[in-house]
Amino acid sequence: MPGVESGKLYPPEVLRSFAAAVFEKVGVSQEDAALVADSLIEANLRGVDTHGVTRMLCVYVKRVQAGLIRAKTMIMVTSDRPSVALLDGHNSLGQVVSKRAMTMAIEKAARTGCAVAGVTNSNHFGASAYYSMMALAHDQIGIAMTNSPAFVPPWGGRQPMFGTNPLSIAFPGDKEGSVVLDMATTTVARGRIVLYDKQNIPLDPGWAFDAAGRPTTDPHEAMKGLLQPLGGYKGYGLALAVDLLTGILTGGDYSFHMGGALADDFSRPTGVGSFFGAIAVDAFMDPAEFKRRVDRVIREIHESPKAEGVSRIYIPGEIEAESTARRLKEGIPLPAVVVKEFVELGDELGVPFPA
Amino acid sequence: MPGVESGKLYPPEVLRSFAAAVFEKVGVSQEDAALVADSLIEANLRGVDTHGVTRMLCVYVKRVQAGLIRAKTMIMVTSDRPSVALLDGHNSLGQVVSKRAMTMAIEKAARTGCAVAGVTNSNHFGASAYYSMMALAHDQIGIAMTNSPAFVPPWGGRQPMFGTNPLSIAFPGDKEGSVVLDMATTTVARGRIVLYDKQNIPLDPGWAFDAAGRPTTDPHEAMKGLLQPLGGYKGYGLALAVDLLTGILTGGDYSFHMGGALADDFSRPTGVGSFFGAIAVDAFMDPAEFKRRVDRVIREIHESPKAEGVSRIYIPGEIEAESTARRLKEGIPLPAVVVKEFVELGDELGVPFPA
Repeated sequence: MPGVESGKLYPPEVLRSFAAAVFEKVGVSQEDAALVADSLIEANLRGVDTHGVTRMLCVYVKRVQAGLIRAKTMIMVTSDRPSVALLDGHNSLGQVVSKRAMTMAIEKAARTGCAVAGVTNSNHFGASAYYSMMALAHDQIGIAMTNSPAFVPPWGGRQPMFGTNPLSIAFPGDKEGSVVLDMATTTVARGRIVLYDKQNIPLDPGWAFDAAGRPTTDPHEAMKGLLQPLGGYKGYGLALAVDLLTGILTGGDYSFHMGGALADDFSRPTGVGSFFGAIAVDAFMDPAEFKRRVDRVIREIHESPKAEGVSRIYIPGEIEAESTARRLKEGIPLPAVVVKEFVELGDELGVPFPA
Repeated sequence: MPGVESGKLYPPEVLRSFAAAVFEKVGVSQEDAALVADSLIEANLRGVDTHGVTRMLCVYVKRVQAGLIRAKTMIMVTSDRPSVALLDGHNSLGQVVSKRAMTMAIEKAARTGCAVAGVTNSNHFGASAYYSMMALAHDQIGIAMTNSPAFVPPWGGRQPMFGTNPLSIAFPGDKEGSVVLDMATTTVARGRIVLYDKQNIPLDPGWAFDAAGRPTTDPHEAMKGLLQPLGGYKGYGLALAVDLLTGILTGGDYSFHMGGALADDFSRPTGVGSFFGAIAVDAFMDPAEFKRRVDRVIREIHESPKAEGVSRIYIPGEIEAESTARRLKEGIPLPAVVVKEFVELGDELGVPFPA
């Protein structure tokens, strides 16, 4: 489950300042620290706590401290064409490398109409939507995807070879908001299996495999097994496509060759590869007209007849936009265990956390 | 089910010549007739008979005869940027408009590194892989997608608003072949539901909704209902993204506003929109090196441990490549009912079908 709804509420600015200060203390520049903090807080605001400070702050800091992420950014542009950029992140922070790449894609798309940018030797970049949404203010359609440690077998296999390999695409709308798809290419996240396992609740079909690679709805068997790709063999194809674009095309490698989970495997850098794209709407039509057209689609979907028992139909990104509005006012909830971690981290680094 | 395996076998060249002659007889130019025939035969060879002459030849011809598809191609390039093209197909044959668009994307990508091309006022273009695979010979990664008549509700809805909206992406490999993903954004095709309904077999969970928009495994209820998007709400997001790129961005409209099924609704042109992309591998690395890297991924997947009861793991596009090799030798099977249709069509147009 991406969001936590219980816990003490903190003003976003307090968490943002704390996160930025923490990153500066471990050697990250002020500008980069502010960026990484912004990416994490933005995920928290959108309700995606798995990619917010809640789960990522201590992990990132620990990896920087262990020398597994380079604190001082070093990025080399290794290929530069009118509509393509390729960046070597030299193991810098994923957010810093990724924002640089997406910025280049946007600038190039403004000139040529469309561009892509790949990054290699990068790290976990937070939530994909952070980058796809960067395109919106430029009246562009934004695309972002990344590889990640392997938890998914090929269809018919039982060895993890692909990551949850999320992809995001964002379309600018007008009064009705934007359409922001941000999805892993698995049916559910691993965290969902953990939750059901703890509560002894059977899984839905299509979520997981057991250790022998057979589909299972038993949460305990699933814990020993793997995640199912989205909708079966098609999700396997999508995950593979993401791996080929983010890892193989960028000169890095694919999920099978990456380290284990971010928070568990401290034996080596993650070697993340990511891939970004931007399409300038004005190469197709007046952006104002496009945004009106997107608004109409959103209204038609909202007003369409609902399935039995359903009171509301959501647009991709709508729940996250409403979470942002709410949490900007009410604050970001932190579970007690996370507050305790932040207090300890703050004590260690001399940045007191206002518990 | 995309392929039929029973029926009399015909040499591909016989069917290709027949299809091309038929199109010429209804007013299509020799060049365009050859192209449409090639696209259909290619789908048959790949085992995708739903997009081959088997299902499409008579439907296309009937639409041309009814004036619902323009026989004489008229295409206008309405936007032309270094990395973007937009084409108005003026209701010409989908294959002709789409090949023109994909060709422009490939030519532009060769210059800038990456390009996209949208088409509007087009028609059914056959199988998406026909266009994505055009990129392979140019050492490019090819992308193709299209909208189609609405059979899928938004998640939580019960009104069809999105098409099966297929998307394809093709990556060039070397000795091990290419990776060619070509998938509808629904869990299964409508044809699968029809088949199970006829045989009274329960559906798998995740395939269909009943008329009230509730998930169902009853094939009879599903026949009155709708297709489920791939893997649930994520597939809804993918289908919407395809509709926004192919219909809304190109100046056309999305599936909800299109006519009904190609073979059933003869009240108006389909108004198909499609979207193509090409990425030049040499903007990232030496294409020979990329293809070796893809080969390695394919080998590692093939050699990975299999799930219980599985004897072989396939790469996306591998089954289709094997079908092509087999059918080139053995021929393309046509069910008796289709042979009868072809004989009648041939008689009508003065192009005898060699039954």
